[in-house]
Amino acid sequence: MRASFDLSLYLVLDPVQCGGHDAAVRVARAALEGGATLVQLRAPEWHKRAWLELARELLPITRAHGVPFVINDHVDVALAAGADGVHIGQRDLPADIARQLLGPDALIGLSVSNLDETADAARLAGVVDYLGAGPVYATPTKTDASTPCAIDGLAEICAAARLPTVAIGGIQAHNAADVMRARPAGLAVVSALCKAADPREAATVLRATIARART
Amino acid sequence: MRASFDLSLYLVLDPVQCGGHDAAVRVARAALEGGATLVQLRAPEWHKRAWLELARELLPITRAHGVPFVINDHVDVALAAGADGVHIGQRDLPADIARQLLGPDALIGLSVSNLDETADAARLAGVVDYLGAGPVYATPTKTDASTPCAIDGLAEICAAARLPTVAIGGIQAHNAADVMRARPAGLAVVSALCKAADPREAATVLRATIARART
Repeated sequence: MRASFDLSLYLVLDPVQCGGHDAAVRVARAALEGGATLVQLRAPEWHKRAWLELARELLPITRAHGVPFVINDHVDVALAAGADGVHIGQRDLPADIARQLLGPDALIGLSVSNLDETADAARLAGVVDYLGAGPVYATPTKTDASTPCAIDGLAEICAAARLPTVAIGGIQAHNAADVMRARPAGLAVVSALCKAADPREAATVLRATIARART
Repeated sequence: MRASFDLSLYLVLDPVQCGGHDAAVRVARAALEGGATLVQLRAPEWHKRAWLELARELLPITRAHGVPFVINDHVDVALAAGADGVHIGQRDLPADIARQLLGPDALIGLSVSNLDETADAARLAGVVDYLGAGPVYATPTKTDASTPCAIDGLAEICAAARLPTVAIGGIQAHNAADVMRARPAGLAVVSALCKAADPREAATVLRATIARART
């Protein structure tokens, strides 16, 4: 288990949305300067060689900010890059196997989309560090996603979860405050930062919204 | 490096072509009874949980036949399943990293599609055990494949290769003898077994064709 991590503003970095490898590095750097607290690399359209090359370039940047860097799905890429962990879905390798392969210090997140999956995840305490709950809203980013849980469903998941839970799916500046009413530990965003004209400013605004929602 | 392996009749098992998990198990068992000498699992449309479940069911079957079982691309699935190795492409994780993650006894194959990649692979002796050369013919099985090398291109690759080389791409019973004229170490087939009405009989016929071509 990871000693400490902060789910407040969780960047899911999709390099295709960003505009390629170099643009993704720029988005990550800017988002971290604006206050992103965790970075996940997710590039479903890419082959693993390209994941690895980007991961190796991102890791020193996230390290310099003291922010964990995790890989979506691919435990082998995480091992090859020396990333801090993985984020896995319900149909990826089982969490206990990811934990075995990555070791006790890795940060491991698991996606849940309903209360049944949240209850199953409760049995994974000691294996999984945090949950990603969603999609809150329908999103064109992830075409194989489950039915949106909406704010009420998210609130139920967050109340039931035994682990820190970050909300994901269609979260943008304009609905961030609404989502925070469900009391997640933080917000995970894709296009809100990857497609932002100014990702640093966008991250700063989101951090402020999250901070206000907690008071 | 794997102590010994036989590339003669290499089954690339695509469970979607077979008709699902259970059908893939039946195809693999029948192909092994018919003389398949190596099995690779490749399921690009599938999530890794399904790969792992199928791999775990296939492994005792391949073991009972004394035939290696490798995983396409996903080193993490190979590690999780305890498979004998991986087959990687030019855009997958680099071979030296796959070797580090899998250890010295794993069987590692690398795809090459031209003489430049074959020359690069010569520098990987001690890391890679064999090459997969192709596609020989255009094939609808693999939509992201390189330009077909045809029999002449395959012959050039086999002559230049420092490692045992199995031909792949569009190989069927009707062209197997032609492909063997390029002197590969064996033939890798997908639909010729996965879509065969009788995979055991189809494997027997292919083995006989390969044996005749060597005399």
